[in-house]
Amino acid sequence: MIVRPKLHWLRLLLVWHGSVLPNILRRLVLMLAIAVLAVASHTRFQQLGIHLSLAPFSLLGIALAIFLGFRNSLCNERYWEARKLWGGLLTTCRSMLRQAQSLTGRRPDDPEVAGFTARLIALAYALKHQLRATSYEAELARLLPAELATRLASAHYPCVLLLRELADWLSRQHRDGRLSDISRQSIDTNLNRLSEIIGGCERIAGTPIPYAYSVLLHRTVYLYCLLLPFGLVGDIGLLTPLISVFISYTFMALDAIAGELEEPFGIEPNDLPLDALCLTIERSLLEMNDVADLPAPMQPNRYHILS
Amino acid sequence: MIVRPKLHWLRLLLVWHGSVLPNILRRLVLMLAIAVLAVASHTRFQQLGIHLSLAPFSLLGIALAIFLGFRNSLCNERYWEARKLWGGLLTTCRSMLRQAQSLTGRRPDDPEVAGFTARLIALAYALKHQLRATSYEAELARLLPAELATRLASAHYPCVLLLRELADWLSRQHRDGRLSDISRQSIDTNLNRLSEIIGGCERIAGTPIPYAYSVLLHRTVYLYCLLLPFGLVGDIGLLTPLISVFISYTFMALDAIAGELEEPFGIEPNDLPLDALCLTIERSLLEMNDVADLPAPMQPNRYHILS
Amino acid sequence: MIVRPKLHWLRLLLVWHGSVLPNILRRLVLMLAIAVLAVASHTRFQQLGIHLSLAPFSLLGIALAIFLGFRNSLCNERYWEARKLWGGLLTTCRSMLRQAQSLTGRRPDDPEVAGFTARLIALAYALKHQLRATSYEAELARLLPAELATRLASAHYPCVLLLRELADWLSRQHRDGRLSDISRQSIDTNLNRLSEIIGGCERIAGTPIPYAYSVLLHRTVYLYCLLLPFGLVGDIGLLTPLISVFISYTFMALDAIAGELEEPFGIEPNDLPLDALCLTIERSLLEMNDVADLPAPMQPNRYHILS
Amino acid sequence: MIVRPKLHWLRLLLVWHGSVLPNILRRLVLMLAIAVLAVASHTRFQQLGIHLSLAPFSLLGIALAIFLGFRNSLCNERYWEARKLWGGLLTTCRSMLRQAQSLTGRRPDDPEVAGFTARLIALAYALKHQLRATSYEAELARLLPAELATRLASAHYPCVLLLRELADWLSRQHRDGRLSDISRQSIDTNLNRLSEIIGGCERIAGTPIPYAYSVLLHRTVYLYCLLLPFGLVGDIGLLTPLISVFISYTFMALDAIAGELEEPFGIEPNDLPLDALCLTIERSLLEMNDVADLPAPMQPNRYHILS
Amino acid sequence: MIVRPKLHWLRLLLVWHGSVLPNILRRLVLMLAIAVLAVASHTRFQQLGIHLSLAPFSLLGIALAIFLGFRNSLCNERYWEARKLWGGLLTTCRSMLRQAQSLTGRRPDDPEVAGFTARLIALAYALKHQLRATSYEAELARLLPAELATRLASAHYPCVLLLRELADWLSRQHRDGRLSDISRQSIDTNLNRLSEIIGGCERIAGTPIPYAYSVLLHRTVYLYCLLLPFGLVGDIGLLTPLISVFISYTFMALDAIAGELEEPFGIEPNDLPLDALCLTIERSLLEMNDVADLPAPMQPNRYHILS
Repeated sequence: MIVRPKLHWLRLLLVWHGSVLPNILRRLVLMLAIAVLAVASHTRFQQLGIHLSLAPFSLLGIALAIFLGFRNSLCNERYWEARKLWGGLLTTCRSMLRQAQSLTGRRPDDPEVAGFTARLIALAYALKHQLRATSYEAELARLLPAELATRLASAHYPCVLLLRELADWLSRQHRDGRLSDISRQSIDTNLNRLSEIIGGCERIAGTPIPYAYSVLLHRTVYLYCLLLPFGLVGDIGLLTPLISVFISYTFMALDAIAGELEEPFGIEPNDLPLDALCLTIERSLLEMNDVADLPAPMQPNRYHILS
Repeated sequence: MIVRPKLHWLRLLLVWHGSVLPNILRRLVLMLAIAVLAVASHTRFQQLGIHLSLAPFSLLGIALAIFLGFRNSLCNERYWEARKLWGGLLTTCRSMLRQAQSLTGRRPDDPEVAGFTARLIALAYALKHQLRATSYEAELARLLPAELATRLASAHYPCVLLLRELADWLSRQHRDGRLSDISRQSIDTNLNRLSEIIGGCERIAGTPIPYAYSVLLHRTVYLYCLLLPFGLVGDIGLLTPLISVFISYTFMALDAIAGELEEPFGIEPNDLPLDALCLTIERSLLEMNDVADLPAPMQPNRYHILS
Repeated sequence: MIVRPKLHWLRLLLVWHGSVLPNILRRLVLMLAIAVLAVASHTRFQQLGIHLSLAPFSLLGIALAIFLGFRNSLCNERYWEARKLWGGLLTTCRSMLRQAQSLTGRRPDDPEVAGFTARLIALAYALKHQLRATSYEAELARLLPAELATRLASAHYPCVLLLRELADWLSRQHRDGRLSDISRQSIDTNLNRLSEIIGGCERIAGTPIPYAYSVLLHRTVYLYCLLLPFGLVGDIGLLTPLISVFISYTFMALDAIAGELEEPFGIEPNDLPLDALCLTIERSLLEMNDVADLPAPMQPNRYHILS
Repeated sequence: MIVRPKLHWLRLLLVWHGSVLPNILRRLVLMLAIAVLAVASHTRFQQLGIHLSLAPFSLLGIALAIFLGFRNSLCNERYWEARKLWGGLLTTCRSMLRQAQSLTGRRPDDPEVAGFTARLIALAYALKHQLRATSYEAELARLLPAELATRLASAHYPCVLLLRELADWLSRQHRDGRLSDISRQSIDTNLNRLSEIIGGCERIAGTPIPYAYSVLLHRTVYLYCLLLPFGLVGDIGLLTPLISVFISYTFMALDAIAGELEEPFGIEPNDLPLDALCLTIERSLLEMNDVADLPAPMQPNRYHILS
Repeated sequence: MIVRPKLHWLRLLLVWHGSVLPNILRRLVLMLAIAVLAVASHTRFQQLGIHLSLAPFSLLGIALAIFLGFRNSLCNERYWEARKLWGGLLTTCRSMLRQAQSLTGRRPDDPEVAGFTARLIALAYALKHQLRATSYEAELARLLPAELATRLASAHYPCVLLLRELADWLSRQHRDGRLSDISRQSIDTNLNRLSEIIGGCERIAGTPIPYAYSVLLHRTVYLYCLLLPFGLVGDIGLLTPLISVFISYTFMALDAIAGELEEPFGIEPNDLPLDALCLTIERSLLEMNDVADLPAPMQPNRYHILS
């Protein structure tokens, strides 16, 4: 995620540099070269009776804009659904910790509460690593008892097993007479919610946008931009390179943004800052336990990007 | 579902080969032939005073793009609703198994829990076969006691009867004093959720997109592509075949993708991988029961397609 | 609802015949006549200094396509909301019957359960007749005790009174010690859901799409199609009838489909098959009661239409 | 709300007369005058070297159509959200009355039930008057005990105080041993739902569509229509008045409809029929109490408009 | 938020003055200057063989309109989601206060109820200050006991700690035998809802629209407007300044509105009136406690803006 800086142009260039532009800059240079070629060869082609006009490009360009708008809608919805699921994770963890304190009548600094909190925090980190397919062993070892961390390290669905651990904690409180049937139900409902959040994230990570949309549009946009200068040159002559690079930039950038948003759990500049979100969950839950010494919040890097 | 491979061109061609293109390749060849015919007959038609221009095709083409975008929206929403329902099936099964363990106080390796799990897994497989109209006898026989499997095999709505079986399991636990009224309510609420998921899938499978949309647009797109070369030829002459095939490709491919997404429970390349989803449910539930030996996850075939 | 047949062209024509086309066929013939008139009178009008060009029709045509897309969105959403409400009716009835069996501990063939089931089925039929403003007396007499059927026959909101009957059934079970407070709550929540479904259907049936949208667009589309040939004739001469009928067909068909979907509870070919949905509810509930002899499912008529 | 009459043209004109057209008719006459002026002054302007072409109007017209479609979407969503909230009000009132009868075991004709019903009906009327900023004293005096009606008459948020009254009724039943804790919870949940409905209506009434959208588009549409004849005249000469009035009509009517839907609680022809909705709530609740003599349903006025 | 005044033109200008226009007025003057320059230099450029036509601007302009429509959709959805969250805050606070009164059987003027109310009101103000990154110390000191206000003043997530305070209040009532398990569950569910509202607001404030959309479109719109006069001048000559300023105004205003709505918690004219919303919550809750002397409601300033 790119944090929106105040609009000072020099810093803006820096942000941009860490973002979409570099990916398409080389392609824009190629487009420029082709546009120059189109201008240079225009007379030659005309003598051969081969010519294009802008009209079919207008038709196809507007159709492409409609389809690109559609694809961007899809990708953007995925991105926000993913973000909402992580927002729900924060919210539900806070609610469950509040309930684990108030419904059992335990104080915030009770070690039992600390154990519950550690499992909630571990759940967030485990989910992050599962979605990014990175290794979560070190992080779980930091947060959980050694025996549990080892058991989870070899699991295929560690987050689901952590939910079972949380349910076991509730059963223990219930057995100890600390938690009534009704109160256990209240927390159990939130466990269902966590299960939905985990399943929702797995769905987004595991089911791409129908592949044909991405390939079809990506391909069509690039072919369109390649042919465009030849359609423009009869109309605007020497200014063809300027205008065709401008139009290509707009279409290719929208195609590139959609491509980044499509997989919101990646580590590209426009993806979700899962590291920062995990840290927020950790900080907020620890503060609820009156822990004085919270870990420092994450700062954006010099490209204004949170990982 | 097509798994997104890294973009190596040779493999991409292979993917594509297993996907939408073949369906429309023959039609593109036809379009090419017609475009060549349009170029060849242009002068002849003009002598007869019969001529077209691009302007009406611009108008109709943009209108078609708007309507195609609308149809793709509809079909895509169906696809994702279906996917979310199956994601909800996984999520709810996990939640119910967690509850069946923790609220009854049974251990993960308790045979009663195994019986409950088997009914949940059978539900997923039965739903898959119902939606694809394939035979589920073999699969139910593998998972369930013989008597139950036989009884379900002749049912019209086997999934609904499986819900009744799950409710019976709960009643038994309740009678044995293992499950309080409140805790039974918590699981019963998830049974309602399963009922909604089954009903939602039946709705998608049983109610097509209003038929007129599909037929009308399909028909209009093809007629449009057939006439297009005659509109282009006066404007761009010899390049008519190139441009008209390009435009036809874009429109026909979007029409074809919509057609595949429209019925998400089918077995075409862009449809939902119900086999893989059932296997994920089976693997995840068995792991929650500490079963050591999980069935292997499904691998995409050589066209990167999960069935 | 039109059931999607396999695409054999002869049968397709038959389907189409039962669908949208006839409604607009006469209008298309009128458009053809006007287009021929436009061609014939072209020279005469030009001598009078009266001429049109295609450019304003391009502008207005694209604007109309955008607005038609908007109206089709609206109508289509209504259609699917109505379909989802009926899907929810099936789902909720199944859930309530499952609960009425398992939470009271009654067997599927208990006469008390049969009475509850009859009231659920009667609710579906009563809702259908209320929405279509047809008479439900016969159907209620078939399903319910005579006294109750008579009482409902004179009611203004029979579905709401049936909900009260279902609640009375629950109170009776509760008084007999068959249903705990908690379990009654579980079923009562589903009664609320039924109330929402009934209210939702009443809303769709009682509140049309803002009238101005339908009238405005319908009127504008037809005026547009009437004038179009005069705009085309200067550009494409003799081919004006072909192209203007093609464009008119696309616009008028989309307008006509929207008009059918707008009132999903009607009995036109693209409307919801409420007869078949009621029968599915009846069949599914009876099967849950182990009734051996289910009524036969409905078959589409020879135009592939389910009523 | 305009009730959709059968399409007889004479009556249709009457409906239309009560609807959007009059608001824009005068403006259309102005547009006609300007178009005639544009035709008359065309030669004069050309001699001065001042001329317009249609091309920039095509560009801007399509852009405007896109933005108008966007604004109509917004306004239409508000309208339907408001309608759904009122549908939810009907549904929730019915559910609460059903619960007040069956969960307390009171008969429909019990005076206590009648008091509860009166407060529900008063809530609907109070909400209507609050949203339309009209006086609700008379209506509350008709429905409620004098003391309560007086107290509410001076309240800033009377609906919220009525919710408190309903909660007091529940507490009384609970104190009398008529309502268990669980059953009170079931009804209390519906009180929360009423609170959401009231808050939702207040939000729609109190927060307009971002003001700039309405002003910007309204202003741009009118300026566009004013300039349009000057762009058309070079192209289509004498037919300029016909076509420019046609295009202006389409754009201005869509702008006007959006303006009416924007504030769904008003009393313009396309607004919500709150009077009729309140009466439906009253009739349906009274029928649930077996009141024989229901107030008559509202009839549309001669313009087919329900207020 | 701008309150919609009656449309008197003089006042409308005043409103407008406090709104979007000033931000883009200087830019429009720049556009005018460039358009004049384009007219003046037209002949000179043509002699150099450098010329533009309107056709590529039509294509790009329509594509931009589609993308601007998409961005405005995104920003507008954020705005309304934020508004709904604050509406939910009002609704949930009212529901919780009603429950705190009726479920504990406490009278509205009970000091315990007043303490609960103060914490709810403080929550709204704390959330406002957190979202706007302003200091909440003074406001909390006004509403809460000194010890609590101090403790919250140094917190990172004060709203979350206030939820814990509210839960503690419930535990106290429960310990005193004033609140049954079931009734505590009812209020606890609303605490979860508050947690979701807080998390939702944090999400909107903390996660901007993908940065590339804003930058890309903003940049493209301005470059487009800069080049547009040179495309228009060949077509419409002396009227270029008029038309290009008109088109630029439409595009730049839509871009500017989207920019304001994008961050709904700011203090620009089109942002949410959080001050007024907090005051409404305070007034409505105090009235529920029968407090006679409510703080006065907020009045819009002379630009019709609520802060």
